Amino acid sequence: MVYDIAIVGGGPAGLAAAVNARRRNKETLLVSKETMSSKLVQAEQIENYLGIPQISGSELIGRMRNHAEAEGVINLKDEVQNIYQEDRLFSLIGRENAFQAKTVVLAPGISTTAEIVGEADFVGRGVSYCATCDGMFFKGKAVAMIGYIPEAESEAAFLSEICAQVHYFPQYNLATELGPKVNVVHGKPQKILGRDKVERLITSAGEFEVSGIFIERAGRPANELLDGLQIENGFIRVDFAQATNLPGVFAAGDCTGKPWQISRAVGQGQVAALSAAHFLNDNQD
Amino acid sequence: MVYDIAIVGGGPAGLAAAVNARRRNKETLLVSKETMSSKLVQAEQIENYLGIPQISGSELIGRMRNHAEAEGVINLKDEVQNIYQEDRLFSLIGRENAFQAKTVVLAPGISTTAEIVGEADFVGRGVSYCATCDGMFFKGKAVAMIGYIPEAESEAAFLSEICAQVHYFPQYNLATELGPKVNVVHGKPQKILGRDKVERLITSAGEFEVSGIFIERAGRPANELLDGLQIENGFIRVDFAQATNLPGVFAAGDCTGKPWQISRAVGQGQVAALSAAHFLNDNQD
Repeated sequence: MVYDIAIVGGGPAGLAAAVNARRRNKETLLVSKETMSSKLVQAEQIENYLGIPQISGSELIGRMRNHAEAEGVINLKDEVQNIYQEDRLFSLIGRENAFQAKTVVLAPGISTTAEIVGEADFVGRGVSYCATCDGMFFKGKAVAMIGYIPEAESEAAFLSEICAQVHYFPQYNLATELGPKVNVVHGKPQKILGRDKVERLITSAGEFEVSGIFIERAGRPANELLDGLQIENGFIRVDFAQATNLPGVFAAGDCTGKPWQISRAVGQGQVAALSAAHFLNDNQD
Repeated sequence: MVYDIAIVGGGPAGLAAAVNARRRNKETLLVSKETMSSKLVQAEQIENYLGIPQISGSELIGRMRNHAEAEGVINLKDEVQNIYQEDRLFSLIGRENAFQAKTVVLAPGISTTAEIVGEADFVGRGVSYCATCDGMFFKGKAVAMIGYIPEAESEAAFLSEICAQVHYFPQYNLATELGPKVNVVHGKPQKILGRDKVERLITSAGEFEVSGIFIERAGRPANELLDGLQIENGFIRVDFAQATNLPGVFAAGDCTGKPWQISRAVGQGQVAALSAAHFLNDNQD
């Protein structure tokens, strides 16, 4: 079977692409490594998906998946290792199966760097990857921000407006002044401690009593999948139609850059699918 | 009160910007002409807003509004006529009130009706989009009011108090009585004629000698709102952060181009608000 549109990744961007591809009446395959977007499943509460004021991450991604399944998306669990083009078809090579499609939407998300000891245990219980989403939960409290990339600085500044105390741990050469409200500490994070929730961060520069720990890491280039795919600053380069530099290949969601947000990913997934549908109609035999 | 972020437009893009601005702890004003997005209210069934498989347009926009209100967005019904910048503040001039803000997110949607032949040539020389602003220029003269929405009726009534003659051309099913001073004509506008200024309106119901022609549409061309705003192919030009060419001014949704889709608008509204929040943090006194 040759699918019209093959989508790599089962997070919000991939699922949005899948729903919209089906609404365009295209044979649609979605290949995802995990049954659920791992980042979203860990989010305790999401408050900025417009129209659904409060919902847990696992419930939201569950609703998104149900929506895609109701539309007739073929959803397979596999991990795409490589994609190559032959004649006018794309072959997607998974760990278990191979698939063929006329167009591809890349929505693999981003991978993150090594975990801090205790990090995984406290996700949603004090550890967060999004100051925008979760900052308000720590209003008036002490928090730590561990920044692996300079983009974390503005997140720390935002937190300093609402939190009682912000300790900032740059894991790179800090070049800018962060203002009097951010306490810059030069130390490596070693361990996160607490009973039910985060209570302490152990670092090479001492221990810190905090209620929240924000972690901001770099995304890893997603160019390993597809030869010749253009990457810019570590992200897949797309135009406003979500087209990559390779004809027939589109990309959406976190793999295209920041901000890493659900609604942005959903909107981009929608546009990517509509662009793929246009591409199919323009390139009919 | 000076708001951090003022949002023009109460459709999905504007409401998404509002929710995300509040999640960033910004004082947020949303000014919308209608209580509901007129386009969305008319949609009987929406099936591609990810996570909500089937919903009517009016119910979806209602949920979006409730979400924004729960986040503490200040929501005012008014129609922004003009925006100008002085020092580092934006002044938004509505029909009824004026507002001040440090940043602006434009999400006015698009006007779905085509221009009348000659309309663009006579703007400011007899063609006007605001009876409140320009009505007095036509005191004692004959004018036409072309109304695409029922909101135009009160403007026609206002004109009938100061003008010698008011011809009203409803472009929808007129349901109300407009009183003896307004001459209702059922005809389509076809052409605006004159030498230096407006002299005649040609319609499918005959020709009318008028000095002024007022036009009331569901949306107004966005480039009339703000001097120097860059427009490309009829749409507000934005970058990937939804920034326009004017520092502190962002745009989202249908006004930035196609495809005209809800999720795309919501994603762009989110990014626009986050970019405005970044701008505010980078430009603090």
